Amino acid sequence: MSQSLGKCSIKLERPVYIVSSGSIVGTKEGEGPLGLLFDRVGEDDMFGAKTWEEAESNLQKEALYLAMSKKGFKPEDIRYLFAGDLLGQSIASSFGLSVYQIPLFGVYGACSTCGESLTLGAMTVAGGYADLVACVTSSHFASAEKEFRFPLEYGNQRPLSASWTVTGSGAFLLGGSGEGARAQICGMTVGKVVDYGLKDSMNMGACMAPAAADTICRHFEDWNRGPDDYDKIITGDLGSVGQMALLDILRERGCDISTQHMDCGMEIFDPESQDTHAGGSGCGCCAVTLSAYVLKQLEAGNWKRVLFLPTGALLSKTSFNEGRTVPGICHGVVIEAV
Amino acid sequence: MSQSLGKCSIKLERPVYIVSSGSIVGTKEGEGPLGLLFDRVGEDDMFGAKTWEEAESNLQKEALYLAMSKKGFKPEDIRYLFAGDLLGQSIASSFGLSVYQIPLFGVYGACSTCGESLTLGAMTVAGGYADLVACVTSSHFASAEKEFRFPLEYGNQRPLSASWTVTGSGAFLLGGSGEGARAQICGMTVGKVVDYGLKDSMNMGACMAPAAADTICRHFEDWNRGPDDYDKIITGDLGSVGQMALLDILRERGCDISTQHMDCGMEIFDPESQDTHAGGSGCGCCAVTLSAYVLKQLEAGNWKRVLFLPTGALLSKTSFNEGRTVPGICHGVVIEAV
Repeated sequence: MSQSLGKCSIKLERPVYIVSSGSIVGTKEGEGPLGLLFDRVGEDDMFGAKTWEEAESNLQKEALYLAMSKKGFKPEDIRYLFAGDLLGQSIASSFGLSVYQIPLFGVYGACSTCGESLTLGAMTVAGGYADLVACVTSSHFASAEKEFRFPLEYGNQRPLSASWTVTGSGAFLLGGSGEGARAQICGMTVGKVVDYGLKDSMNMGACMAPAAADTICRHFEDWNRGPDDYDKIITGDLGSVGQMALLDILRERGCDISTQHMDCGMEIFDPESQDTHAGGSGCGCCAVTLSAYVLKQLEAGNWKRVLFLPTGALLSKTSFNEGRTVPGICHGVVIEAV
Repeated sequence: MSQSLGKCSIKLERPVYIVSSGSIVGTKEGEGPLGLLFDRVGEDDMFGAKTWEEAESNLQKEALYLAMSKKGFKPEDIRYLFAGDLLGQSIASSFGLSVYQIPLFGVYGACSTCGESLTLGAMTVAGGYADLVACVTSSHFASAEKEFRFPLEYGNQRPLSASWTVTGSGAFLLGGSGEGARAQICGMTVGKVVDYGLKDSMNMGACMAPAAADTICRHFEDWNRGPDDYDKIITGDLGSVGQMALLDILRERGCDISTQHMDCGMEIFDPESQDTHAGGSGCGCCAVTLSAYVLKQLEAGNWKRVLFLPTGALLSKTSFNEGRTVPGICHGVVIEAV
């Protein structure tokens, strides 16, 4: 039995199905180009909580509830949870999901966490360890600003290369049965830490682009595929500056994905009217875009196969304040129409 | 193909072997009761670095190097890394292990992370996704105090219920071949978030004890086993106060593990001479104790089968400052002599 492919990829012997999913976002995301597609848009960004962190926990709780309720699942139907967020010690996940009392694997890959959770969740189902698992990730603009940058009250200015952390959470239920499923996961390419020595936390797109390029190249090599094998190659939250860096790095390596490339961070906000500079970012950005937009395109038959590539910047405020670099990581997931 | 057992356990069809392991600790741990058993004891607690965080990264780098070099493995022999630590955004792992350029799954379960990484690593090998994976966890007294409590320079007093974060890292190589292996992993019971509403971050043993009790009870139920089926039932870092709470909770449920129970936090320091109060704690505590002491007992034939139960307290300084509770989680791993 081998489900390994090439040097760092997994080709699932039988696909794992995205049985259901849920998305919930904040007001600003609701006003963006994808606004009408999300399952739920909050009335304010507190989601009934008293703190930003608790608000983010409520996002996760609600996203998983949405994913379950669409197919009539209960928490006891889900064997394992794979969940993470951007906050120190992943408190949005541990406080948000504890109510469901599902055994939990906490995962951390910064904004790549959605890809990591889908990878481990699919491995768990395909390995015969569970019939149904849930993968949940989130971010919140205000809790992320507090965690990584400045208090909102400080009113700091942001350079044009900065991104805007998405307030939102996406939850995905993965199972072995394809009946009525939204899409199928056929394989994964696991990301490495890639460090080009960049140190600008206000330009995370550029910090993460080398990791995205690395995973894309290793994916094509392991799978013996190229850009034309995909309808879309979808990075998580590189934004407009990161996109330029990614396309440049890949061109230097003789690979042109400009036709297929799409970035969730560039889809979720309108750069003209929403003042979000380089685009959206955060664990929630690609998770809600996958649930609300990408899966719908696959269901509609507009796309047959996509390479979903959440990207993460592996910094903390401590590492930043100590002058360390901002390394990146990117996990690739092959998702196909059922 | 089913490798699931009961409600939340995994019974591996074929065992996964702990092929090699490495342990490195700080000076205080080197002076403790297990001091002579560790592979390496640092000369000071900086390990050649300029910051505590970088020192912790160096611990992980060195632990993995030790585990590899004992069996002549190179980084390219290891397909995936499962790694985590206690610092915000797991920077000890991402900066410490990036040099090896091994695809990385970042995991977070507070001090239970060693159990989580062994669980996911074993699932990966048994699922046919990899021939060899590495599981690395660490903690550092000074980086943890800065992350969770007070700056060392503040010289705060610690209550007797407080634990002392272990400076150390343990690395484990898991593979499918038992030749020359140290021990074998036969199954796992995955932990849930358990929250008894306790809020005292200076008494984390009591905060984590309910989670340990929950996992132990679910393990016995899923596996149809009891305390007598194990030579040792080994919690991660409950310490002396947490041990009392654990034994009490279990007795109330009609389960007495007092004969088999051992806590890594109570083994690693001498409470009389080392002023560590309730005992050792941290991701590194149970990892180095497993590598240096528990596996040696299994190799020597003194023990045949143990239940290894790293325990984690899912708090952050933000959640603590906002008055939230300190929930716990505990992942159980069945380890047997080869």
